[in-house]
Amino acid sequence: MNLRAVIHVIADLLIVEGLTMLVPAGFSLFYGDGDIQAILTAAMITLATGGILARITRNPEELKLREGFAVVVFGWCALTIFGALPFVLGGAIPSFTDAFFETMSGFTTTGATILTNIEAMPHGLLFWRSLTHWLGGMGIVVLSLAILPLLGVGGMQLFKAEVPGPTKDRLSPRIAETAKILWGVYVLLSAVETALLMFGGMSLFDALCHTFGTMATGGFSTKNTSVAHYDSVYIEMVILLFMFLAGTNFSLHYRFLRGKKEVYRLDREFRFYLLFTLATILVVTAILLLSKPASIGGALRSAAFQVIAIMTTTGFITDDFELWVPSGQFIMILLMFIGGCAGSTGGSVKVVRIMLVLKHSLGEITKLLHPNAYIPVRLGGRVVAPEIVTNILAFFIIYVITFAAGTILMALLGVDLVTAFSSVAATLGNIGPGLGLVGPVDHYGHLPVMGKWLLSFLMLLGRLELYTVMILLVPDFWKK
Amino acid sequence: MNLRAVIHVIADLLIVEGLTMLVPAGFSLFYGDGDIQAILTAAMITLATGGILARITRNPEELKLREGFAVVVFGWCALTIFGALPFVLGGAIPSFTDAFFETMSGFTTTGATILTNIEAMPHGLLFWRSLTHWLGGMGIVVLSLAILPLLGVGGMQLFKAEVPGPTKDRLSPRIAETAKILWGVYVLLSAVETALLMFGGMSLFDALCHTFGTMATGGFSTKNTSVAHYDSVYIEMVILLFMFLAGTNFSLHYRFLRGKKEVYRLDREFRFYLLFTLATILVVTAILLLSKPASIGGALRSAAFQVIAIMTTTGFITDDFELWVPSGQFIMILLMFIGGCAGSTGGSVKVVRIMLVLKHSLGEITKLLHPNAYIPVRLGGRVVAPEIVTNILAFFIIYVITFAAGTILMALLGVDLVTAFSSVAATLGNIGPGLGLVGPVDHYGHLPVMGKWLLSFLMLLGRLELYTVMILLVPDFWKK
Repeated sequence: MNLRAVIHVIADLLIVEGLTMLVPAGFSLFYGDGDIQAILTAAMITLATGGILARITRNPEELKLREGFAVVVFGWCALTIFGALPFVLGGAIPSFTDAFFETMSGFTTTGATILTNIEAMPHGLLFWRSLTHWLGGMGIVVLSLAILPLLGVGGMQLFKAEVPGPTKDRLSPRIAETAKILWGVYVLLSAVETALLMFGGMSLFDALCHTFGTMATGGFSTKNTSVAHYDSVYIEMVILLFMFLAGTNFSLHYRFLRGKKEVYRLDREFRFYLLFTLATILVVTAILLLSKPASIGGALRSAAFQVIAIMTTTGFITDDFELWVPSGQFIMILLMFIGGCAGSTGGSVKVVRIMLVLKHSLGEITKLLHPNAYIPVRLGGRVVAPEIVTNILAFFIIYVITFAAGTILMALLGVDLVTAFSSVAATLGNIGPGLGLVGPVDHYGHLPVMGKWLLSFLMLLGRLELYTVMILLVPDFWKK
Repeated sequence: MNLRAVIHVIADLLIVEGLTMLVPAGFSLFYGDGDIQAILTAAMITLATGGILARITRNPEELKLREGFAVVVFGWCALTIFGALPFVLGGAIPSFTDAFFETMSGFTTTGATILTNIEAMPHGLLFWRSLTHWLGGMGIVVLSLAILPLLGVGGMQLFKAEVPGPTKDRLSPRIAETAKILWGVYVLLSAVETALLMFGGMSLFDALCHTFGTMATGGFSTKNTSVAHYDSVYIEMVILLFMFLAGTNFSLHYRFLRGKKEVYRLDREFRFYLLFTLATILVVTAILLLSKPASIGGALRSAAFQVIAIMTTTGFITDDFELWVPSGQFIMILLMFIGGCAGSTGGSVKVVRIMLVLKHSLGEITKLLHPNAYIPVRLGGRVVAPEIVTNILAFFIIYVITFAAGTILMALLGVDLVTAFSSVAATLGNIGPGLGLVGPVDHYGHLPVMGKWLLSFLMLLGRLELYTVMILLVPDFWKK
């Protein structure tokens, strides 16, 4: 393990973080609600730490496979620790546990909050909170399409061929090139959404914050009642559309923008994602219509927004799905285990993995009839390598086991069962709202301190596709 | 599909069923509480149907692979339909849905009941109810060790080598030989338990019924409050021991009885089963001690009995675990997804599958570090063939998906979430008691009719290791 090289990259990340803190400082100055000092102090501490560390570790060797894992995991943690400073320093979130939870929830694009009165927060801090989403989303797009395929994590090797570049052992040049392309798409979509939201009557501040929450599939809002605050079909439609786009593989957007019009139609994962979302919206609409007096339009509006908000792991709220009938609630829970497409900012298991897991399982049934036949798993006509399939099966299983283990730990802390399992599903899947005491109109502030640390860890675990974090726990990893 | 041969075997099974109904008729005669006519009529109908069908289909060809699946699934259904007759004919259970549910619950060794007052049932019917457990358990032992390994279902090929016999395409001779050996062990253990229970003060009737419930890991009791009725440490210890033995691979018992004393110690699955059970008992004891005023002995007694009762999928009750703290309840739910050893009468996923799933998943994490290494899954030093591992992974995943789909259907029928998911877990895993409205001191009688049919189907699906039933849904299965 070349620790020096790892620290050098993290130091660079801290410098970038310190600089981006100056943007909320600008909003702080504009609104003048007294949080400028905390933000500037935090920025200075972050910049100074980053600067000193970068200086100490200058001229590092190039990163190799293992260092890649360490940079991702420790980088995410370092950004969260320093990112929590603006909240702690000004006393807006006095407890470091809470500030860490909120910032981890931001950077992992989860959107679970410990705040009880969001609107009481000063604008600068609120902007920083939403900005962590957007930065986290940037990180994830690059991670999932440029880094994880090279590291061979959780079946993401599937996407190795989609982004061109040099050999496996030289990570930097290829990552830099891919990052530029993807970030271009990310910034473009964000700009369009912000403009559309402002056109709908939002201030620049609210439009940016909600765009950050959307594009990162995060879910932090600037309003206590989330998107329901606006009660506007137009705003819901804009956010719904961009949640859906944010839950799509960004390399498709890139290729579409480069003129390949057919790219969405040809992509199997996207087709499944689209059809599955539409079918689920119809089912939930029917359930809502049958279970309570509602107009077709009203039911469809609630169903469409909530299905897409949960499935893409954004977690914005327009209708408290905890008040729905059990079948509606349970569908939302199941959606928490699907998530967006691979290569999107969406979390959880991901559509392509669910598809391959289903295809493999069905294949095994057919194999019973033809015990000696070779029945490969195919995706869009191409055979998926058996190693990738087994890797994805293991991912799915580790996900389920982590969910069960997390729930048991939360229950051991004295949390009731529904809150325990839904808080774990909602943080491991980077969604945000769960059920019970962490339902759509509740928050995570009242959970025990240990529970907040556990859920913060689960957010990181889920966001980094489990393997990336777990590999650091293998003793072999640390051997030369 | 050679339907004639299939019907012939099922006809033979019906004849055996009709004959075994004469045993409860004997108890009916002895206790004289008025159910003899219903039982004898049912026996006659069953014998006549079996006799006629056997006659029509006489001199059938030998069974092949596909016919094996059909015999198992349709045989189980036919036995259940005719087995429900004694309950319906006398009016003891007036609804056919309820009688079918109760009988399916018996033959699948589930132990979920629709009865509200068990003790009000006449003795003959009560005996028949328990006897369905014991017959189902006999079927399962043979199915899992003699038939499924040949059919290649759900990784049971692992046990192919353990039972000697001729080629795959000639099922009958080998099955007959294996069945004789296993049934010998089953009958022997049953006789010992019955004697021990009578020694503890039970009547022959109660001792036999509780033995049937134990050895089949079924869970039907003759008492409204299940085993708690006796409030006897001795009786609980006897039942606990035999539940544990019934949850063990019967081929181990056979080899042990043949003088191979080391056989338990050497078997990896048994070691895991034993250590995992002990560890879980300790954890649950600690949870009970910390959460309520209890003596160490009392907590240990409750924990030991309930952990083994649920883990082995028996479902006898001495302590209402729904009153435990959430962590204790959730551990019981997790146990419902483990189950007994392969080749036992226990249901659910099975210990060996859980072991291999865990080993595979851990191996995939290590593989990240050594992308080109071949890291096979081993069980006790021997490499498990990759096809078997993938087959088991698919089994686990189909199990989880079936659980989720079942829960959503139950919720769609208007059942609350906790009742929905726990009733599905408890029937798919052939356990019996769940939580909520189907908790340890409740029953399944009040569920909607469609829900009872769904859960009956899940019992069958779980008991026949999913694949055996699902393969009948593949169109290819029915082609020549």
